[in-house]
Amino acid sequence: MTLTDVPNTDATSGPGRPAAEVPHMKWWGWGVEGVGFHHEDKPAFAPFVLQAVGLDLGTATKAEAPSFDGLDVAPSVATPELLDALRAAVGDGNVATDDLDRVVHAYGKSLRDLVRIRANAIERTPDVVVYPADEAEVGAVVRAAVEADAVLIPFGGGSNIAGSLEALPGETRPVVSLDVGRLRRVLDLDEDSGLARIQAGALGPDLEAQLNERGWTIGHFPDSFTHSTLGGWIATRSSGMQSDKYGDIAQIVRGLRVVRAGGVVDIPAIPSASTGPSVREMIVGSEGRLGVITEATVQVHRRPEQRRINAYFFPDWAAGLAAMRAISESDAALSVTRVSDARETGFSLATSKESHGLSKFLSGTALPTIMKSKGWDLERICLSFIGFEGGAEHVKRQKRLVDAIVKQHGGMGVGTGPGVLYDQKKFDTPYLRDFLLDHGAAGDVSETAAPWSKLAGVYDGVVAAAEAAYERIGTKGWVMCHLSHSYHSGACLYFTFAFVFGDDPIGEYDVVKGAIQQAFIDHGGTISHHHGVGLEHSPWLEEDISSEGVALMRSLFTAADPGGNFNPGKILG
Amino acid sequence: MTLTDVPNTDATSGPGRPAAEVPHMKWWGWGVEGVGFHHEDKPAFAPFVLQAVGLDLGTATKAEAPSFDGLDVAPSVATPELLDALRAAVGDGNVATDDLDRVVHAYGKSLRDLVRIRANAIERTPDVVVYPADEAEVGAVVRAAVEADAVLIPFGGGSNIAGSLEALPGETRPVVSLDVGRLRRVLDLDEDSGLARIQAGALGPDLEAQLNERGWTIGHFPDSFTHSTLGGWIATRSSGMQSDKYGDIAQIVRGLRVVRAGGVVDIPAIPSASTGPSVREMIVGSEGRLGVITEATVQVHRRPEQRRINAYFFPDWAAGLAAMRAISESDAALSVTRVSDARETGFSLATSKESHGLSKFLSGTALPTIMKSKGWDLERICLSFIGFEGGAEHVKRQKRLVDAIVKQHGGMGVGTGPGVLYDQKKFDTPYLRDFLLDHGAAGDVSETAAPWSKLAGVYDGVVAAAEAAYERIGTKGWVMCHLSHSYHSGACLYFTFAFVFGDDPIGEYDVVKGAIQQAFIDHGGTISHHHGVGLEHSPWLEEDISSEGVALMRSLFTAADPGGNFNPGKILG
Repeated sequence: MTLTDVPNTDATSGPGRPAAEVPHMKWWGWGVEGVGFHHEDKPAFAPFVLQAVGLDLGTATKAEAPSFDGLDVAPSVATPELLDALRAAVGDGNVATDDLDRVVHAYGKSLRDLVRIRANAIERTPDVVVYPADEAEVGAVVRAAVEADAVLIPFGGGSNIAGSLEALPGETRPVVSLDVGRLRRVLDLDEDSGLARIQAGALGPDLEAQLNERGWTIGHFPDSFTHSTLGGWIATRSSGMQSDKYGDIAQIVRGLRVVRAGGVVDIPAIPSASTGPSVREMIVGSEGRLGVITEATVQVHRRPEQRRINAYFFPDWAAGLAAMRAISESDAALSVTRVSDARETGFSLATSKESHGLSKFLSGTALPTIMKSKGWDLERICLSFIGFEGGAEHVKRQKRLVDAIVKQHGGMGVGTGPGVLYDQKKFDTPYLRDFLLDHGAAGDVSETAAPWSKLAGVYDGVVAAAEAAYERIGTKGWVMCHLSHSYHSGACLYFTFAFVFGDDPIGEYDVVKGAIQQAFIDHGGTISHHHGVGLEHSPWLEEDISSEGVALMRSLFTAADPGGNFNPGKILG
Repeated sequence: MTLTDVPNTDATSGPGRPAAEVPHMKWWGWGVEGVGFHHEDKPAFAPFVLQAVGLDLGTATKAEAPSFDGLDVAPSVATPELLDALRAAVGDGNVATDDLDRVVHAYGKSLRDLVRIRANAIERTPDVVVYPADEAEVGAVVRAAVEADAVLIPFGGGSNIAGSLEALPGETRPVVSLDVGRLRRVLDLDEDSGLARIQAGALGPDLEAQLNERGWTIGHFPDSFTHSTLGGWIATRSSGMQSDKYGDIAQIVRGLRVVRAGGVVDIPAIPSASTGPSVREMIVGSEGRLGVITEATVQVHRRPEQRRINAYFFPDWAAGLAAMRAISESDAALSVTRVSDARETGFSLATSKESHGLSKFLSGTALPTIMKSKGWDLERICLSFIGFEGGAEHVKRQKRLVDAIVKQHGGMGVGTGPGVLYDQKKFDTPYLRDFLLDHGAAGDVSETAAPWSKLAGVYDGVVAAAEAAYERIGTKGWVMCHLSHSYHSGACLYFTFAFVFGDDPIGEYDVVKGAIQQAFIDHGGTISHHHGVGLEHSPWLEEDISSEGVALMRSLFTAADPGGNFNPGKILG
């Protein structure tokens, strides 16, 4: 994958940027204008796609970039009274009712969202977008929305793929999208405690730059990092690439401020407390249903002395899984534990540039010869990345421990070369989805977590379910997987799937996605490890946390928001 | 401290023990009959107590052991219909209405509880105690209680010191104490995932023995370990002595089953999930208000190859705190980080036997001479215990890292001798409280957690507040402290206080305890790190998690239990 440009959020601009400067992704796709995936320098890519999903990039027609002028945008139903109240709350210039702003805030970036927006099929456009400058303005917006019995949907970077950002199709009340993009500052850094107070609307690169300047890092790097916000990470229980070391966002966030109609929930940043059911853990993952997160106090760490990502190969998936489990049980304490199945390993090789990275390793004869001499089947090999961080001696010792475990499981190390490349391009994968969509193929991701003892069963079950689904819709499809995070008692499996769609892209997508989600449940996994529930996964929630578990959650939502003004319908259908 | 006998819960008895064999602590105090603190072999103890609180053990009258026959126990108000339904649920032999059983279940073991029960002042005795044998019977009890509009209070080991186990004084409905003591088995051990399914009523030594037999440990060792249950740990957000390594109970528990009137909440043991607000974290700390926890799936670990606790001395409290913070920021990853202030260090020396442990170190001339040569003031020295666990090489490396940090902070190591002793007697401290009470002195504990930057302020504030409180009630009092758990962003400070009481032990206790709790809040700490809220700490909850935070919690409780049948009044007043 190559990017024609590297998007770079401006971290140096001062606090309180105007609404007009809040960055947004393309209204019709991932990332920023002018940046996209292309494969001209990756000769293995087109043959790979042909083999994987039967799409011939040589002959396929590329769709035109969608035209905004052709979109049918329903008129805003915001009442003049509501608009007046919102303007009084945030100032005239920070209330937007123009079509582009409304469309940008209509959806997240799931495959379903991209297909609908490209097909001129926006089901419910928000009526007004507001850009408050601080917590007091958020409070005024919240009160105005509840007063008017409007629906309020908080919006961060807009990268959500679980349907958490859209109004319900039949919503008759005015819909207000509250964009937190102006709240982007690191407010305070407590260097004695490793705690930073950060506003909820700070995008990943923006907050990380502000921390890096002072020698610190949050250590949270989800795939969406470039285009997602702290508030969004918290609202969806996000997880990052280095969460093995730094924790998922639920561990990273300690203090929280959440604006509700009655006032501000203010959870102090205590390292651990015994104060009843955790209100902090009610807010984390709440997707806007309990109020608007305005800031969080998060754990930050001094940037490590050393940081490296090494690549390893295993003869097969079972060996890779077993090695990751052994590593998690060891004293190693790593930052990244990742292993791809054979299909994803093939994909990684195919998307490497000819002269760089993985291809270099396997295009010669040396490495394949060694692998064959070990009796490996090159169609079954699995690529793994392991991340090491800390003091020089710590990293050296981690590396020694991991090398020994890899060897015990029949694997081999190939150094840091591929890891450097992985590190550079890790945030670019979502661009590929738009490229495929341009050429008639649908692709998306779906991830789960399960105990170690169930992972192999989940994996086999999902692959079988996806293949059966492809057969059902009569297409050639692809599914690949990597283990992306390890815990003491289990791991996350992250699946990517793609297929050439026919007349009904969303209907066909539903068959495949639904089959994968059901396989998660049937084989002992959860419906989501870090993407949230939204509308996309709520049909399976009862099968995951039980109907009485859902009943408890519904009790909370209903009693805390009796008018159903806060992002109604999400998480619980 | 010496125990005349070591209590040993019988771990070998089979599943489904009868109600009559469920062990209980003394109705009037901590632990088992025939075990207590004595100081005959600790010559420094009596002078220490005289100096600390002005109590002369040589002349003080020892109270007689309270007589059960003299207790006024209000008659049970359980209706015949309720009793019939409960007998139908669990069998005749597992429904108790005798006075002793009811009194045993009336209170936990806080100072307030002990004083009231010794003073024949039980405010509301439960009307009936039931001992279900399994989850189905728990369900039948729950339904019978709700049907009869009774109050249901789950009871584990009865060690709670936050008032979580008592019915409200004015409760007019029948009160059912549901003792989970028969649910004591490790049901399943998933050795691939490091997960064990354990019934909620298993006492610490019982579940640990069942795990140890197979080479595993839960790694959870609260001070109450001998007399507390897994369900109680979960219901109160317990923390253990080795939580730095194994996590607090909120991290250890992954899956949960909770019986409610409508059915069973069944949260699967997923290592990490993005399924909305965490229902698991709503149950943890819920103190019976959301239902009855019947089992949990918890993280377990293979017993470490090596385990050792080393003792260190620091010249003063500030140096000890700074060293603990530096250790927490290092790559060391320890199992125990503990440092006592000068007062508690003096207490530890005074409670050592003449010929063993710490006295040996300081009774000679060698160590004091070294300390004095370093310019240390022996009145200010602080004793620290650091725990190391893991493979031999890991432990060696941890030890090397810690030794260097201790040295940087002016401390010195004194080997493993005191640590071995600490390890042996760590669960015995609560017996001391009964001993003091026998001699006219009140003592209890109160603990908080705060960011590293606020710890010194919390400490100073609490000591000043306690001293002012002693002055207010006109007594000579004592307060001492240790840092008991370290986290990335802060630590737990654990205070112990004692004073000779006058005419109104509880009123005087309230002045001291209240001053300490208020100081926690005023200086940036939480009202409890691991003892729970109950009735004891609820007056400060709004100042801790904000009134909107309390409002969210109240929404959950009210909607989930509209009849207020589940342990009403706890956590939220």
